[in-house]
Amino acid sequence: MDQFSNGDIFAGEIIGTAILILFGAGVCAAVNLRFSKAKEGGWIVIAFGWGMGVLAGAYTAAPLSGGHLNPAVTVGIAMDTGQWGKVPVYFLGQMIGAIIGAVLAWGVYYAQFTANTDPEFAQDTLGNFSTIPEVRNPVANLITEVIATMALVLPVLAFGLTKGLGESGTATLIVALLVVGIGLSLGGPTGYAINPARDLGPRIAHSLLPIPNKGTSDWGYAWVPVVGPLLGAVIAAGIFKLAY
Amino acid sequence: MDQFSNGDIFAGEIIGTAILILFGAGVCAAVNLRFSKAKEGGWIVIAFGWGMGVLAGAYTAAPLSGGHLNPAVTVGIAMDTGQWGKVPVYFLGQMIGAIIGAVLAWGVYYAQFTANTDPEFAQDTLGNFSTIPEVRNPVANLITEVIATMALVLPVLAFGLTKGLGESGTATLIVALLVVGIGLSLGGPTGYAINPARDLGPRIAHSLLPIPNKGTSDWGYAWVPVVGPLLGAVIAAGIFKLAY
Amino acid sequence: MDQFSNGDIFAGEIIGTAILILFGAGVCAAVNLRFSKAKEGGWIVIAFGWGMGVLAGAYTAAPLSGGHLNPAVTVGIAMDTGQWGKVPVYFLGQMIGAIIGAVLAWGVYYAQFTANTDPEFAQDTLGNFSTIPEVRNPVANLITEVIATMALVLPVLAFGLTKGLGESGTATLIVALLVVGIGLSLGGPTGYAINPARDLGPRIAHSLLPIPNKGTSDWGYAWVPVVGPLLGAVIAAGIFKLAY
Amino acid sequence: MDQFSNGDIFAGEIIGTAILILFGAGVCAAVNLRFSKAKEGGWIVIAFGWGMGVLAGAYTAAPLSGGHLNPAVTVGIAMDTGQWGKVPVYFLGQMIGAIIGAVLAWGVYYAQFTANTDPEFAQDTLGNFSTIPEVRNPVANLITEVIATMALVLPVLAFGLTKGLGESGTATLIVALLVVGIGLSLGGPTGYAINPARDLGPRIAHSLLPIPNKGTSDWGYAWVPVVGPLLGAVIAAGIFKLAY
Repeated sequence: MDQFSNGDIFAGEIIGTAILILFGAGVCAAVNLRFSKAKEGGWIVIAFGWGMGVLAGAYTAAPLSGGHLNPAVTVGIAMDTGQWGKVPVYFLGQMIGAIIGAVLAWGVYYAQFTANTDPEFAQDTLGNFSTIPEVRNPVANLITEVIATMALVLPVLAFGLTKGLGESGTATLIVALLVVGIGLSLGGPTGYAINPARDLGPRIAHSLLPIPNKGTSDWGYAWVPVVGPLLGAVIAAGIFKLAY
Repeated sequence: MDQFSNGDIFAGEIIGTAILILFGAGVCAAVNLRFSKAKEGGWIVIAFGWGMGVLAGAYTAAPLSGGHLNPAVTVGIAMDTGQWGKVPVYFLGQMIGAIIGAVLAWGVYYAQFTANTDPEFAQDTLGNFSTIPEVRNPVANLITEVIATMALVLPVLAFGLTKGLGESGTATLIVALLVVGIGLSLGGPTGYAINPARDLGPRIAHSLLPIPNKGTSDWGYAWVPVVGPLLGAVIAAGIFKLAY
Repeated sequence: MDQFSNGDIFAGEIIGTAILILFGAGVCAAVNLRFSKAKEGGWIVIAFGWGMGVLAGAYTAAPLSGGHLNPAVTVGIAMDTGQWGKVPVYFLGQMIGAIIGAVLAWGVYYAQFTANTDPEFAQDTLGNFSTIPEVRNPVANLITEVIATMALVLPVLAFGLTKGLGESGTATLIVALLVVGIGLSLGGPTGYAINPARDLGPRIAHSLLPIPNKGTSDWGYAWVPVVGPLLGAVIAAGIFKLAY
Repeated sequence: MDQFSNGDIFAGEIIGTAILILFGAGVCAAVNLRFSKAKEGGWIVIAFGWGMGVLAGAYTAAPLSGGHLNPAVTVGIAMDTGQWGKVPVYFLGQMIGAIIGAVLAWGVYYAQFTANTDPEFAQDTLGNFSTIPEVRNPVANLITEVIATMALVLPVLAFGLTKGLGESGTATLIVALLVVGIGLSLGGPTGYAINPARDLGPRIAHSLLPIPNKGTSDWGYAWVPVVGPLLGAVIAAGIFKLAY
C-alpha cells in the first residue's frame, strides 16, 4: 500500500467504494422494489450484481489505491505486508465512498423509492442499503460473517502468489467472481456484509435520506457486520502467515 | 482514435454496433415475445444477453475502430485523449449499425413478430427495440441514465490504466462484464440505454418496420436516453481528468 | 488448419465435438426431463450449459485440431485461410463426435430416459438431441439460423486479429461466452443449431437409440439447421474478407 | 506434483478442499434450507456456487499444492506424469479438508440447521452435505458419475497443453467454468459428485454433526460417488495418453 500517495488512496477508495455500493445497493433495489424491471430477478441477480460491482469498483480504483474497497481487505493486506501507516486513509475513503454510493443508488431508483407511499404496498427499505439477518441470532450471525469474510480474505492474499494473474491484469476479475461465489454460497443467512464499510456507510445513508415509509435503520444489528468481517480478516491473515 | 482510418472506423462501428444491437434487441425479443424458447427467462437473461452483445460487438470491431459502439464512450474517450476529429465518423457508424442491428434482430424473430396479430394476445413491441421507463418521470429517468452511464464511462477510462488488461486481450471481456453488472444493478428503472445509438437507432427501425400491432414508437421519451448518456459521459470524463 | 496432422485433427474433432454435445444435449435433458435436479432450470441454464460445452470441448481439442467442433466454423476458417485440404477430415470427425456425444448424454441421463414409459407423463425426446423450431416456418427458421451463425463466425474470425487473446490463452473463453450470448439472444425461435454437426449427429443418435416413447426424429426439418449455418458461415466469411 | 513439499501439499489441499466444500455445501444449504435469502434460487445458483468454490479453493491452494482438491484429479495427473509418490498426501489432505469444509458450511448455516426442529417443516439434511440420486439405480448412477468425471479430468489434462493459459494465470478460471458447465449439464441425475472427497468427507461430517431431524446419512449409496469418479479419471487419463 505504501506505493500509493495518500491523496491517490483517498480518491481511489472513495471512487471505487462508491461504485461498489452503487452496484450493490442498486441490485438490491432492482430486485426488491416495485416498478423495477428486475423485480423478483432472484438470488443469481443479487450475487452477480454485487460481484460485478467489485469488478467495476476495484478495476477503477486499482491505478490509484490498489482497489481494496473494504476495511477487512485492508486489514488483511496490512497484516500480510506490515504496512499499517496508510490504513486510516483507506478506512476513511471507504466509508465516505460507501455513503456516496448508497446516495447514488437512491438517486438511480429515486422514482421507485418515492413511490413507496401507498400504505397498502409500502415496504421497509433498509434491505436495499444494509444487511438484515434472516434469523436474528447475534452469535450465529457473527460466525456467518466471520467465516464468509475468511473466504474472501484468505483467497485474496493467496491470489497475490499466483503466477500470471497480476501480469495478465485478471486478478481483479478473479476476486469479482470469488465475491459472486461468496454471495451465492454464504449469503443466505445474513446477506453477506463481509465488509464493514459496505454495511455501515449505506446504513448511515439510510438514516439520513428522506424516503417515504423507510422503516428502521436497525442500529442494534449494526455492530455484527462491522466486527464479524474484521475478525474474519484477522483470522484469515493469521492462517495465511502460518501456511504460506 | 487517430490510429484508425476513417474507412476502418466507419466499417468497424457499423459492424460492431449492429452485432451489439442484434444481441440486445434479440434478447429482449427472446424473453418478451410469445413462441420464444426463452420466454420469461428473467432479468439475468436480459443482462447477460446485452453484456455478451458488448463482448461480441466490441471484440469484432476492435481491430478496425477500437470498438466503441456507443457515442457516450466515444465522447468520454475524446475528452480524455483530446482527439475529436473522427468523432463524427464514429457517431455515424454507430447510428447506422444500430439501425441495421435492430433490423437483423427483427429478422431473427420474424415469425414471432408476425405472430403478433391475434387481438387477444397482441402486445406492444417497442420494448424489444428501445427503452421504456417503468415510472415515467423525465427528471428521475434522466438522473438514472446519467449515473448509469457514469458507471460505464469512468471504469472504461480507468481500465486503460490497468496493467496487463490490454496485453492479455481481456480488457473487452471486463467491459462486457461491467455492462452485465450495469444491467443487473442499474437497469431496473429505465432499462439502461446508457448509449444514445442503442436507443435511437432501434427506435427509428421500430417506426419503419412493418410489424403487426406494433404500438407507439414513443418519440416523446426519445430525448432522455440520448441526453442522459451524453451528460453522464461528460461528467465521468471530467471526474477522470481530475482524479487520475 | 494445415499445421495439424490428419490423425490429430480427426481425434481432436471427435473428442472435442463429443464433449460439446455431451454438455449440450445433457443440459437440455437436465432442464426438460422428469427426475432431474435441474428440471425447469430456465433458459439461463440452457445457454450457459451449451457455452461451457464449447469451452470444455474447444479447449480440449485445441492442441490437436484447433478445436473447431462445427462445420460452419471450419468453412469460415477455410474461406479465410484458403486451406481446404483437410476440411473433409474436420467434417468427418465433427459428425462422429456429435453422434458419440449424444450417446454419452443419453448414458448420463439413462435412468431419466428409461423412466419415460408412463403414458400419462411420456414426453417427446427429440428436443434433448436436436433443434425444434417454436414456429415452424422454413424460410423464417432458415433466416434465423443464417443470422445466428453469422453472429458466431464473423466474431470468431475477428478474434484472431485481436492482440493478446491468443497469447493469453483466453480466445476460447471468449468464444464460449459468445456462444452463451448467441443462445440467450438468438436462440428463442429455433433453439440455435448454428452448427450442422450439432444438429445432425444427435438426430442420427436419436433415430437409433432405444428410448421409450421417444417420438419422431423430425427428418423433414433436418435440412434447415444444416443449410442455414453453412450459408451463414459463407456470408460471414465474405463480410470478413471485405471489411478486414 | 513432485515440485511441492509434503507439508505444503498437505496444507494446501486441506485449505483448498475446505474452501471448495464450504462453498459447495454452502450453496446447497442456501438454496434448500428455510430462512435463507437464496431459498429456491434455482439450479443456476447451485452450479455457479460449486464452480466458484473450485475457483476460490484451487487458486488458494495453487501456490502450495497445485490445487487438485479432488482424488480423481490427482489420479488423472499421476497417471499422466507417472508421479505417484505423493498421492497419499494429496488424498489425506483432501479428505480432511472436505470434512472441515462441511463443518464450516454447517457453521455458516447454523441458525438455519438448528431451525430444523419444527416437525411440520423438518426436512432431511443430507442433500446439503452429500449427493443423492434422483432415481436410485446404482449402475445408471455409476455410469453418470463415470462420464461426468471423464468430462472433468480429460479437459483438465488437455488444458495443461494449451498455450498461454498457465502463463496468464487463467487456467484455474477455465477449470472453474468447466465445473459450472458439468453441474449445469451433467448434474441432473446424481448431483455430480465427480470427486470422492467432495462426497465422502461431508457424509462423515453429516453423520457426526448434531443437527435436529437430520435424517439418514445413506451409507448404502456412498460407494457410487467414490468408485465412479475414480473409474472416470482412469478412463479419461487413458484416453489422454492415447490421443495426445
